[in-house]
Amino acid sequence: MKKHNFYAGPSILSEYTIKNTAEAIKDFAGTGLSILEVSHRSKEFTAVMDEAQALVKELLEVPEGYSVLFLGGGASMQFCMVPFNLLKKKAAYTDTGTWAANAIKEAKLFGEVDVVASSKDKNYTYIPKNFTVPEDADYFHFTSNNTIFGTEVRFDPDVNVPLVADMSSDIFSRPVDVSKYDVIYAGAQKNLAPAGVTIVIVKDSALGNVDRAIPTMLDYRTHIKKGSMFNTPPVLPIYSALQTLKYYKELGGVKEMERRDLAKAELLYSAIDSSKMFVGTVEPEDRSIMNVCFVMKPEYVELEKEFIDFASTKGIVGIKGHRSVGGFRASLYNALPIESVKVLVEAMNEFEKKH
Amino acid sequence: MKKHNFYAGPSILSEYTIKNTAEAIKDFAGTGLSILEVSHRSKEFTAVMDEAQALVKELLEVPEGYSVLFLGGGASMQFCMVPFNLLKKKAAYTDTGTWAANAIKEAKLFGEVDVVASSKDKNYTYIPKNFTVPEDADYFHFTSNNTIFGTEVRFDPDVNVPLVADMSSDIFSRPVDVSKYDVIYAGAQKNLAPAGVTIVIVKDSALGNVDRAIPTMLDYRTHIKKGSMFNTPPVLPIYSALQTLKYYKELGGVKEMERRDLAKAELLYSAIDSSKMFVGTVEPEDRSIMNVCFVMKPEYVELEKEFIDFASTKGIVGIKGHRSVGGFRASLYNALPIESVKVLVEAMNEFEKKH
Repeated sequence: MKKHNFYAGPSILSEYTIKNTAEAIKDFAGTGLSILEVSHRSKEFTAVMDEAQALVKELLEVPEGYSVLFLGGGASMQFCMVPFNLLKKKAAYTDTGTWAANAIKEAKLFGEVDVVASSKDKNYTYIPKNFTVPEDADYFHFTSNNTIFGTEVRFDPDVNVPLVADMSSDIFSRPVDVSKYDVIYAGAQKNLAPAGVTIVIVKDSALGNVDRAIPTMLDYRTHIKKGSMFNTPPVLPIYSALQTLKYYKELGGVKEMERRDLAKAELLYSAIDSSKMFVGTVEPEDRSIMNVCFVMKPEYVELEKEFIDFASTKGIVGIKGHRSVGGFRASLYNALPIESVKVLVEAMNEFEKKH
Repeated sequence: MKKHNFYAGPSILSEYTIKNTAEAIKDFAGTGLSILEVSHRSKEFTAVMDEAQALVKELLEVPEGYSVLFLGGGASMQFCMVPFNLLKKKAAYTDTGTWAANAIKEAKLFGEVDVVASSKDKNYTYIPKNFTVPEDADYFHFTSNNTIFGTEVRFDPDVNVPLVADMSSDIFSRPVDVSKYDVIYAGAQKNLAPAGVTIVIVKDSALGNVDRAIPTMLDYRTHIKKGSMFNTPPVLPIYSALQTLKYYKELGGVKEMERRDLAKAELLYSAIDSSKMFVGTVEPEDRSIMNVCFVMKPEYVELEKEFIDFASTKGIVGIKGHRSVGGFRASLYNALPIESVKVLVEAMNEFEKKH
């Protein structure tokens, strides 16, 4: 049976990405070798790395003076790399969920952290507004999409200091004004590639301004200087990332991805809002178009497990909500076809009729 | 034409590993999903992680009280993680090549580093002996195999302090007495898996003894506590690693790998030593069985490029030596069949006859 993959991450990749990766495992670029066993210094792979960096720049219209890196270690490693490289005295953060809180925890090891707003009071079900970022902060860090709680900041905030954003779960789902940022980072395992690589877009002039000694691997300048080839990079995840980037370009870029993502989210949120059984968990204006969190209304809550089982008979996988929210989470990443959302909505309607 | 893959890393993997990885890209463990897009929290992948850790323990006879981790970031990240976690006041290192020197550089950020011996005086063509490790060192770090220069320490040194070893390029090529070590680490892209994962074997009781604050992702305890699932691990490289580990077990474990590796190295070194044209670059007693470095004798040196081209007509790839040594390097990792070594030796003989 065809599966409808709603996992929050690692998550669905395009058939194009999967097919091309499978082919490269058999024979990479006509080398007669598998992508699994080819040197990262081979001319065939250095071409992959170069093209992947160039396509990120093209798709997100990255201005001059920025570098694009493909690093190992996960976005969680960026939680310490950002302050290692950028935090001189003080940084401002918003606390909008588990990953934001983790980023704050790391920054505190490096200097003063001003948590300018938090939505923890309501279990992170909204995005805080009306806060002030101190003008003497070295940067303002926010998490653009909160995967666990299903909230999203779908714009580039206007503050008086450089922005730093964790865009792990919504990068490539909208155009971004990169010029406002010192650093954008994103674990690739949602909208880009299999797990194992993190994309970092960094403003070159933002670096070199801290006094502390930075371990070589944690210094962005190390990787900029060597084009992400200081040490052996995660070859296969980068190859897959390139396939996804090519696919996005062919489809019309991030604007087209946004159009599709908005249509999918609209379809599912409408079904939730018109349901007598299901209800969204997030303030409507702050709803994520990537991760749709919902639960059953109190009078039906004992049916949650049954619905997951019912949905699985339709090929629907990965809709169990994170334990800190409960209920359901349907992740509608770029690669998810709207047909899968239709199958989910039909399953919700059918289940509702049965009860 | 069949390729003979002598790359130094990323490098040849067994057909078993490549075939099973290719199949999991189409359908992972009957889930109907690709290994590229499956949640690391799925029961099918947590089983992979558990089995991979268990097989490392079984193959290397890891004693109680040690943890096996699969981390992102590469062995170069371990150059700072080791001193972050273990260096209280002073550590002892040997300088046996580029990677050892890089490890020393990082350790110096954390405390006193006693470089007890170096072979830099002769371009790292031997392994220093007759050195003393101070008894008050927190640990003694060495690089068991020097990939670039082709030297190897094929035993577990007897010193009065705990050992730490970078075994990136010779792990699983011999039995190891793990009980002598606080930490063994190895980038996987030589004898285990595609690039993107690093294996770490760490003695639990060696941790928690330093005063400094350790960033969460750089603290081994973070990953021990969560079974390498604190954040999203590199799923595909770990899946491939499991295939290789199963393959090693099926073949008879690391003793059998050592028998095969010694036979391959013997074949190639004999050919070099009986050649009028080629000559090894390393002291015979310190020769690596993983990376065989050799050059052309002065009177033939202008033929080096021609030999590489000639070899490539036989399907031989990856034998160009590292720029700091020149000449040739043939990497004979576990997955390389002896037939490939025979093809190389025949090519050397044929080339020699021609000139």
